[in-house]
Amino acid sequence: MPQNSAAKEISTRHPVNHAYRSKSAWMPHFRSPGGLKSEHMELLLKTRKFDVIVLGSGVAGGHVASRCHKSGLSVALLESHGFGGTCPLHGCEPKKVMADAAETVERFNNTSGTGPTGSAKLDWVELMRFKRTFTDDLPDKIRTHYQNLGIQTFTTAGKFAGPNTIVSGDELLEAAHVCIATGSTPRELQIPGHGHLSSSNDFLAMPTLPERIVFIGGGFIAFELAHIAAAAGAQVTIVHRSERFLKKFDADLVQRLTGHLEKLGVTFHRNCPPHSIEENGGALLLKAGEDGRQSFTADAIFNAAGRIPALAGLDLPAGNVDTRNGGVAVNAYMQSLSNPCVFAAGDVIAETMPLTPVASVEAEVVAKNIIEGPKHTMSPDVTPFSLFTYPPLATVGMLEEEAQKQGMRFDVIQGDSAGWSEYQRIGQTCAGFKLLVEKDTRQLLGAHVLGDAAEETINLFALAMRKKVDVDELRSMLWAYPSFGYAMKYMFR
Amino acid sequence: MPQNSAAKEISTRHPVNHAYRSKSAWMPHFRSPGGLKSEHMELLLKTRKFDVIVLGSGVAGGHVASRCHKSGLSVALLESHGFGGTCPLHGCEPKKVMADAAETVERFNNTSGTGPTGSAKLDWVELMRFKRTFTDDLPDKIRTHYQNLGIQTFTTAGKFAGPNTIVSGDELLEAAHVCIATGSTPRELQIPGHGHLSSSNDFLAMPTLPERIVFIGGGFIAFELAHIAAAAGAQVTIVHRSERFLKKFDADLVQRLTGHLEKLGVTFHRNCPPHSIEENGGALLLKAGEDGRQSFTADAIFNAAGRIPALAGLDLPAGNVDTRNGGVAVNAYMQSLSNPCVFAAGDVIAETMPLTPVASVEAEVVAKNIIEGPKHTMSPDVTPFSLFTYPPLATVGMLEEEAQKQGMRFDVIQGDSAGWSEYQRIGQTCAGFKLLVEKDTRQLLGAHVLGDAAEETINLFALAMRKKVDVDELRSMLWAYPSFGYAMKYMFR
Repeated sequence: MPQNSAAKEISTRHPVNHAYRSKSAWMPHFRSPGGLKSEHMELLLKTRKFDVIVLGSGVAGGHVASRCHKSGLSVALLESHGFGGTCPLHGCEPKKVMADAAETVERFNNTSGTGPTGSAKLDWVELMRFKRTFTDDLPDKIRTHYQNLGIQTFTTAGKFAGPNTIVSGDELLEAAHVCIATGSTPRELQIPGHGHLSSSNDFLAMPTLPERIVFIGGGFIAFELAHIAAAAGAQVTIVHRSERFLKKFDADLVQRLTGHLEKLGVTFHRNCPPHSIEENGGALLLKAGEDGRQSFTADAIFNAAGRIPALAGLDLPAGNVDTRNGGVAVNAYMQSLSNPCVFAAGDVIAETMPLTPVASVEAEVVAKNIIEGPKHTMSPDVTPFSLFTYPPLATVGMLEEEAQKQGMRFDVIQGDSAGWSEYQRIGQTCAGFKLLVEKDTRQLLGAHVLGDAAEETINLFALAMRKKVDVDELRSMLWAYPSFGYAMKYMFR
Repeated sequence: MPQNSAAKEISTRHPVNHAYRSKSAWMPHFRSPGGLKSEHMELLLKTRKFDVIVLGSGVAGGHVASRCHKSGLSVALLESHGFGGTCPLHGCEPKKVMADAAETVERFNNTSGTGPTGSAKLDWVELMRFKRTFTDDLPDKIRTHYQNLGIQTFTTAGKFAGPNTIVSGDELLEAAHVCIATGSTPRELQIPGHGHLSSSNDFLAMPTLPERIVFIGGGFIAFELAHIAAAAGAQVTIVHRSERFLKKFDADLVQRLTGHLEKLGVTFHRNCPPHSIEENGGALLLKAGEDGRQSFTADAIFNAAGRIPALAGLDLPAGNVDTRNGGVAVNAYMQSLSNPCVFAAGDVIAETMPLTPVASVEAEVVAKNIIEGPKHTMSPDVTPFSLFTYPPLATVGMLEEEAQKQGMRFDVIQGDSAGWSEYQRIGQTCAGFKLLVEKDTRQLLGAHVLGDAAEETINLFALAMRKKVDVDELRSMLWAYPSFGYAMKYMFR
């Protein structure tokens, strides 16, 4: 059921198959009350002790809490923004509900004149109502889920009072370990009138669709939300600070995608940093570009200029937790460099890729290190990811420029695949690919796919890269026919 | 372009990367005129000599012809049913055009009340017109493609006059090697009134959609075409000889799928062998079951009772070519057991799986054996395949009953996945899976998936099986999120 899909995620994504040592086997000595901030000394009488305190209940924090609890540790889980965190409440999940609806409508309209007949539109109000069936009762269900497990839940953000003490409301919580998993938050735009800006959370909760929408930013969030809004009939403009959109994706395929979105009515502006926002006759006026010479009138302007680790209010200095690049500074064990009691997982680490599966793996490493002692490391792994426009754009491994910079010897195999019957059959006119094949090993250094089901095909490439399957074997293998996985063969000329 | 997708297939599916020995390196002595059938002696003056004669221009024959030609051999390619063969003209390709259109409409209608609004229907006439853009000019284009390569093409079926001679019209063709790649043809139903039966080729070319359609048979063809016809608004009935539908797929998932198709209006009858057909007031009346007690009135009745190797008219005895189970009897080199000049590839071999990718691999083996001598063998490989209903049903590896029969020690992991948000988002109420995991190795013995994009997910399982990746590694890997490939993790509880 959609209502508890996130809970299912959290409880089942990493079933426990290992035998863990008992908590007595490895547990640092509590440091309190030494180091406790003086302002919190009066709370000492109310101190509650746990083995682990987890700040944040998203994909990362929720998993750390569950795993630690399952191994017999007592756990406090703090969450002030709705249990479940960004992914199920304001991120991948609701976005994908909306992106899938947009895809359904576009796919239908793309086939005009080929058999499917009728008219298709995307009704925003109905879509939002449907989206809410996936999100609205989730925080309560997820909190109840943790409580039923026996985890102590708190609806506060918590902040450090000492190296291993956390203030939650008028209580002091103390634990052998604290895991910071507070995720990320939009990077604030410090321009005049920034109070008029809306967030991606606002977008995913809009009761009606504004007529004219501007996104400031040219990354994941701007593209995915712009695509949904355009599919639902809004006039959409993306205003981007620099030249290059979607820096984590192949530049040639990004260009192909932006060309396609332009045909669907999205307008793109490059090298156009935001300057100021003002209200103007009931509408908003964004000034941007050099000296604010370009202006954009909109009914809503969204800050999609990236996200930063959400650390405000945690009082990290009180916890002796250092930061790096604005996030928690951690070692290979995901452990704070300055305070060994503290671990971090997920988007709150600046260097991490802000992806649900990555947060999930990091959380598993943190949980194991809390339970067994810091000996499990985060090893780099093949990490495929997808942008959910329609068509989607997916990537795994190196970008062409990265491979060049690293001095790899590789061939580039690329092409426009919109002519393939796989795409022609469904009226898809936007598709392409780029593969980076290492000369000596014939293995993939990177794979970049634009087109229907790219998010599935990229998983095949990811598994091939992980298992070091060369392209000759990939070409010779049997695949279901027809499928987009099979069509991969056409790439290897 | 759809028009030349099959030609592209043929020319690019197996790019040549190997160095081949010259044809002089291995080439048996011509046997003619010894063994030539006496009735053809008068054609001797008109005899044309080739290195290779290929009978049939489908996926298998076309590839053998191209590969042999590319290695410097002279090639004659005979085709009497339109160049390109079943897959691009009357099989996978046009069927998938129609299945995709059905999926587009159904996916749209499944999301009623969730955002996408409007009405969607499948217009048969428009669909057929669109389908023809993929097929109509293909035979000419494919023939021209081969001619431009320098392959001699003939629009005759050809028949054996001797061990390495073929009669084509009033010419005698002689070659060191003959490759039989004539594919398959519907198994004729010898019941009274069988002249009223239509074929799957007829279905794929119907100018209008009959109101009431009956399929005799309960396999791939019956299910795929029934689904398309039902989606386009026909009343569809499947009448099957025995109890078990779709014997190559998991029985539990087949049951789930038939339940779903019943909701869409398809009617299923088991244990109901056909008895007779008669015309009745402008309609057709099928009698079936014991003593023909059950009767079905239809506007069209299709024979979907399976296909057999297409060998009629080839005069195999004249070529000293033995058969086995109704197909060409071959050894591990795909070489005739009784005539070493002759090879066979594709559906014309009874024991082969009638799948395009399999035919393609067999053709590669045959081509290499013709070029380099019989030393390359067909080795069994992991072979995923999919049934293209909506949702699709896909399979790789063993069925549960096969694994039991072979005495494997395995766990069955299965479930209904319609509750997963991946399916809920798009209104899909029919989805499920069954995995067979070997106890000792934790590797997959078989994977069976029902649901959207099953044809893609099954490729991931196929690669995992080929590379012996165990389920613990599959679960721990990073996949694009959300994707159906990622959702695979939910299966491993």
